[in-house]
Amino acid sequence: MVVAKSWTMVKHFDGAPKPEDFKLVENELPALKDGELLLESVFLSVDPYMRPYSRRMMKEGDVMIGSQVARVTESKNREFPVGGYYVAQAGWRTHFISDGKGLQALPSGWPESLPKSLALGAVGMPGLTAYFGLLEICSPKERDVVLVNCAAGAVGSVVGQIAKIKGCKVVGSAGSDDKVAYLKEIGFDEAFNYKTVSSLDEALKKASPEGYDCYFENVGGKFADAALQQMKDFGRISVCGAISMYNDAVPPPGPYIQPYILFKQLRMEGFIVSRWKNRFEEGGKQLLQWVLEGKVKYHEHVTNGFENMPAGFMGMLKGENIGKAIIKV
Amino acid sequence: MVVAKSWTMVKHFDGAPKPEDFKLVENELPALKDGELLLESVFLSVDPYMRPYSRRMMKEGDVMIGSQVARVTESKNREFPVGGYYVAQAGWRTHFISDGKGLQALPSGWPESLPKSLALGAVGMPGLTAYFGLLEICSPKERDVVLVNCAAGAVGSVVGQIAKIKGCKVVGSAGSDDKVAYLKEIGFDEAFNYKTVSSLDEALKKASPEGYDCYFENVGGKFADAALQQMKDFGRISVCGAISMYNDAVPPPGPYIQPYILFKQLRMEGFIVSRWKNRFEEGGKQLLQWVLEGKVKYHEHVTNGFENMPAGFMGMLKGENIGKAIIKV
Repeated sequence: MVVAKSWTMVKHFDGAPKPEDFKLVENELPALKDGELLLESVFLSVDPYMRPYSRRMMKEGDVMIGSQVARVTESKNREFPVGGYYVAQAGWRTHFISDGKGLQALPSGWPESLPKSLALGAVGMPGLTAYFGLLEICSPKERDVVLVNCAAGAVGSVVGQIAKIKGCKVVGSAGSDDKVAYLKEIGFDEAFNYKTVSSLDEALKKASPEGYDCYFENVGGKFADAALQQMKDFGRISVCGAISMYNDAVPPPGPYIQPYILFKQLRMEGFIVSRWKNRFEEGGKQLLQWVLEGKVKYHEHVTNGFENMPAGFMGMLKGENIGKAIIKV
Repeated sequence: MVVAKSWTMVKHFDGAPKPEDFKLVENELPALKDGELLLESVFLSVDPYMRPYSRRMMKEGDVMIGSQVARVTESKNREFPVGGYYVAQAGWRTHFISDGKGLQALPSGWPESLPKSLALGAVGMPGLTAYFGLLEICSPKERDVVLVNCAAGAVGSVVGQIAKIKGCKVVGSAGSDDKVAYLKEIGFDEAFNYKTVSSLDEALKKASPEGYDCYFENVGGKFADAALQQMKDFGRISVCGAISMYNDAVPPPGPYIQPYILFKQLRMEGFIVSRWKNRFEEGGKQLLQWVLEGKVKYHEHVTNGFENMPAGFMGMLKGENIGKAIIKV
């Protein structure tokens, strides 16, 4: 008999998530039926999207949404033998029963030496988000100048490195000097700490006096206001996130951006990575290859212990992580 | 000896243009040199873009920018015989000397019976703006719902009619009951007076409860805020104008739109029609054909007399026109 732990959302977040918004619950799992398998989580993912999607996809009392790398510990399904590792959209749970549907195997060619947690990061959803969101929406060309914020995060760090692979000049913004140092280390041409620069406008101008062709947007708000003014004509903006606004119930006021969009002939497009789900295999294969070749470097910010998952989540939302925030059970 | 009259901008507009911002000046034109020709304006165009572009392209004292249909009255250039009609970017002038460069002939197949002023309207720059801005950026498909504001204007009225030709449902917003009646007359499925509806949100919902696939944007501001909320997922927004903001020195505050762009996966793109200049012949030919077939109807709001051109311009900015605002010399 297995006891599964899970984290539920007690009530909808009001502003920044707080410890009392989460509750750890335990459930005994029933015996497996034919065709079923039991999985145990090894790594769990905490990602920015969970904040806005908690309101869109969850009701109070639900288990928190999210993906994990899980190992099969018992199986009555020959397709999923004991010991296999899968990525599952199973929420914040230590154990769960599955009929196999929706479980994703790790990309083929995954070497034993590579941490399986990367299937939640550079070779998983965040990597795919960077890959498709940059290449399909920004269409970066050689020598384009690419701007990315949250650049030391799970998505941003991959965006910058893919842009370098494509021959672009890459400018990143991040929220600490350590993150800025990390960005230089992984090949960003320019990087700055947005919290300590005296002016965002000046920092953006200094990093690329000619302006920006592509802007991969994770933040929104005042950063976006400044960045839009530095776009070149015909610039492309991929709106992946708006983390500066996730804790606001309604979008706060800012300057209307339509005049910039109009007179610079900018294209701005929002996306959710699932729109490319039919191409995830292609993307995963490419990302794995780049990681194995050392062209996409990765860093993980690991929080140990399932019981610390809310803390890991809240810390990630505050920007405590360099690279992918992972919970190790 | 010919005396050319022209309207200059005395000083940069501060808010809405006022009569004292304009000055009528007279100049004697010199005799023609070999290769030159003298043209006399027949129709002049007043368009919304002149307001924002006065600051971008003109200095104080310059002749107002703009296009006109002009007739050759004297020629020392065999390629441009006396009596020919051309569209010229000659500004607000009654006469001018040209070496022929930049003069555009009317689209081929132009019948004698068709007013030549249409080369400034439905078959000219505004028509091309509608044609390319709708088809290239919104990519409307059959049965898509298309929203356009300033719908009774020179561009909007053509946008709606092209969308009908493409099999879309078309919703238009305009600023008077007469304009709304005109929109119904030229085939819009739904139209409303944005000045008298009790709620823009409700008016937009009522006109298309399922939302909008395409949004051709001429206005910006509060209209855009409401329209963005009614977009369907994967909606396309063509930003052609922002007339509600042209008199503001800096964009006023409004709600950040990035969350809408993100979660609905919208694509928003600004454009200036000159980007398609290599395809103007194609567009002009198609527009002329649709006009001759009666598929694109037109209406002109004519101000008589060159001396009344500033009044015609100011009236157009206030929305006094149905269809294209034209100055007849």
